[in-house]
Amino acid sequence: MEAVLKSLHDNQQLAMDQLFEFLRIPSVSADSAFKPQMQVCAEFVQKAMVAAGLQAEIISTKGHPIVYGERIEDPSLPTVLVYGHYDVQPPDPLNLWTTPAFEPQIRDGKIFARGATDDKGQVFTHLKAIEAWVTSTGKLPVNVKFLIEGEEEVGSDNLDCFLESSKERLKADVAVISDTSQYGDGIPAITYGLRGIVAAEVKLTGPKKDLHSGIYGGSIANPANALARICGSLVGADGKVQIPGFYDDVLELSAKEREQFAELPFSEDSFLAEIGSGAAFGEAGFSTLERRWARPTCDINGMFSGYTGEGPKTIVPSTATAKITCRLVPGQQPEKILSSLETFVESQCPAGLKFKFTSFHGCSAFVFDPNSVWITAASAAVESAFGKPPVFIREGGSIPVVSSFQQILGIDTLLLGWGRNTDNLHSPDEHIHVADFHNGILASAHLWQKLSEVSR
Amino acid sequence: MEAVLKSLHDNQQLAMDQLFEFLRIPSVSADSAFKPQMQVCAEFVQKAMVAAGLQAEIISTKGHPIVYGERIEDPSLPTVLVYGHYDVQPPDPLNLWTTPAFEPQIRDGKIFARGATDDKGQVFTHLKAIEAWVTSTGKLPVNVKFLIEGEEEVGSDNLDCFLESSKERLKADVAVISDTSQYGDGIPAITYGLRGIVAAEVKLTGPKKDLHSGIYGGSIANPANALARICGSLVGADGKVQIPGFYDDVLELSAKEREQFAELPFSEDSFLAEIGSGAAFGEAGFSTLERRWARPTCDINGMFSGYTGEGPKTIVPSTATAKITCRLVPGQQPEKILSSLETFVESQCPAGLKFKFTSFHGCSAFVFDPNSVWITAASAAVESAFGKPPVFIREGGSIPVVSSFQQILGIDTLLLGWGRNTDNLHSPDEHIHVADFHNGILASAHLWQKLSEVSR
Repeated sequence: MEAVLKSLHDNQQLAMDQLFEFLRIPSVSADSAFKPQMQVCAEFVQKAMVAAGLQAEIISTKGHPIVYGERIEDPSLPTVLVYGHYDVQPPDPLNLWTTPAFEPQIRDGKIFARGATDDKGQVFTHLKAIEAWVTSTGKLPVNVKFLIEGEEEVGSDNLDCFLESSKERLKADVAVISDTSQYGDGIPAITYGLRGIVAAEVKLTGPKKDLHSGIYGGSIANPANALARICGSLVGADGKVQIPGFYDDVLELSAKEREQFAELPFSEDSFLAEIGSGAAFGEAGFSTLERRWARPTCDINGMFSGYTGEGPKTIVPSTATAKITCRLVPGQQPEKILSSLETFVESQCPAGLKFKFTSFHGCSAFVFDPNSVWITAASAAVESAFGKPPVFIREGGSIPVVSSFQQILGIDTLLLGWGRNTDNLHSPDEHIHVADFHNGILASAHLWQKLSEVSR
Repeated sequence: MEAVLKSLHDNQQLAMDQLFEFLRIPSVSADSAFKPQMQVCAEFVQKAMVAAGLQAEIISTKGHPIVYGERIEDPSLPTVLVYGHYDVQPPDPLNLWTTPAFEPQIRDGKIFARGATDDKGQVFTHLKAIEAWVTSTGKLPVNVKFLIEGEEEVGSDNLDCFLESSKERLKADVAVISDTSQYGDGIPAITYGLRGIVAAEVKLTGPKKDLHSGIYGGSIANPANALARICGSLVGADGKVQIPGFYDDVLELSAKEREQFAELPFSEDSFLAEIGSGAAFGEAGFSTLERRWARPTCDINGMFSGYTGEGPKTIVPSTATAKITCRLVPGQQPEKILSSLETFVESQCPAGLKFKFTSFHGCSAFVFDPNSVWITAASAAVESAFGKPPVFIREGGSIPVVSSFQQILGIDTLLLGWGRNTDNLHSPDEHIHVADFHNGILASAHLWQKLSEVSR
């Protein structure tokens, strides 16, 4: 291990230089104009894998390519699947960047560039740690498989298909993803739970065109009134979701988890000030962190009907549409929740309106037993690098690949985020702290050692 | 009267020719590019008034000019205020007109042109009838005052100001407006009731920008959910408006009115087929005509919040807005209803959301006692011209000037419509039936005689 650490220390500047090269490639997956750059970026990742001692190849998909690499030291050792993505969010709005998104620059101890933290900077920590192991000791203490895709920011449309067709090849004991954040400044974290999601659209159609509200109003069902009535019934004044059966399968937080959440530094005032909200509001009987991380929701994400310009317009709208997402917690089945939602909203549709329900791709929630040997090993690695033990947290968002790994490959995922919530991911001036980048490499180097010691 | 009728008969073609001239002027009040044509049109109306034996002048306003003319035969005779408008709706979409909107053409016994029925064709009937009286008998049986404005299609912004400042000048016993329709083909009507209106916008503001529904969902009030809840509470599943006190001042329909409505030819199936609605829906205990003409409503006219594009977007929206109008019936006070609405919606706004309520210009409902001497006189005139007695109907829309005449001038209005609902008003291929135009002139000629016989 000492040799590994020395190698890392000696190569800090080189790692930075190589990261800058990675960040300079505008691998914007959402914009087809950048398609050639996606290929260039995949090749960069392949070369970095080879430099780290992996056998690597570029695998084409219907969309952007996947880069896959592996190094099997010894089948008796634990095998770890590392996932990440080399594609980035579009850099728009360009004028809000202090320096250009694809010209990385260091300011105030931070590396500014699109992809710095999401996810190139974090992916790169694992490659550099592996490279240090291999170059300084000639081997790795575990077997590793790297799966770095190019479509995370556009929905990973072709990933599940690859997972299904490569089950044997991807066989592993545990997965590692560094695409989350620390809990706060100087508070490293392991995320052991994520919420799932289902998404749907409800469209009500009444008269074939907008009607004069004086001539017709009062005599036919108004789709906007009906949609409001239906959507207004989804969540009660007590913050509880009203869909029948919604909470039936919810796995409740343990008393210990609630205690751990309560012990985390959290200022509700700062939280509210940051988002500009006047007060917290949510399910009665739960704290703000519990509501965000471990309670299911039903949020209207968008709603539109009739006239949306200035001033009044006296119409009965022809149609009304709402976008709805439910965040799910462990225990809840996406299909069952979607079906309950559809039944509940359709049952309230008044006579004379056409009802259309469209559902979109969703995923289950995820929870990794925080007492598992893998989490304990990862925790020790993080502590070695960051100088203090990580806190154990959940996150309210969804990472569909974690659900796919569970369902298709049958493995749990260690979510080890080196970055911070304040790193402007998906926003202008995205960055990663230089210290977080180097500590991430260090934590990764320790991680392979600690994981190798796990008795399975 | 015989001389008048002969004169009308002899001058039918001339009246048509002059109407065509009137229709050729593109007096589109909404589009400032047509401002010079508005002046040209006002001058045309002034000249037509003078030709009819009135003293007439063009009165400028902050917007488009008003044309005012009067002929006072004898202060002891009844005085009638005739209102109409010379401005028209924009002709768009132009490509849907069979022949150009401002090149009048007769096809199938109908005159096609923008303004043919709304309202140039109808206004012109009164001028031609007066002209026939004056040219053939040298006098009129009543005093008349003509107020023809140029801003009806853009909200009559400057009309109330003119009414307020001209109360003495406009003093009259009753007003006449021909800007409504017959009940159906071959069923002339007198409209003795209109609904009023109040209009408002409710805007809820939560977090300062759209938030990630995974990271934040469940912990703060979602403006879209709250707006749906609030707007969904406005009308119950039984079609009754739920605003406290909403029905307190409603003047109920008399048993006789309900009978008259029930006797009108009305096919609910045709009505629903025409608007493309699958079923009628409204306040329990009332017929479709009653719901449209004489029951108050609360319709959402527009609603918008968050993401409105394709597919899902996982956000908690920052704001949510709804446009709401209530149609009012006689007895209800616009200010009181607006205030009840505001109180009701605000009381349901959850903690943490900013509530903003904006109200727009509204007006009271109107009802003219169907047994009044004026209605009886007008009914006789319509019967003489159209060959059958008119039916007595209400309409669900609002005509703010009728409310202004009542409140500012203290007079009721005879709503005598010669056109038809199917004349495509506000749409491409607007027209008036040639027969309706001539019958309108005839009815107007009889009207002055009949009104002169009213013992006040």
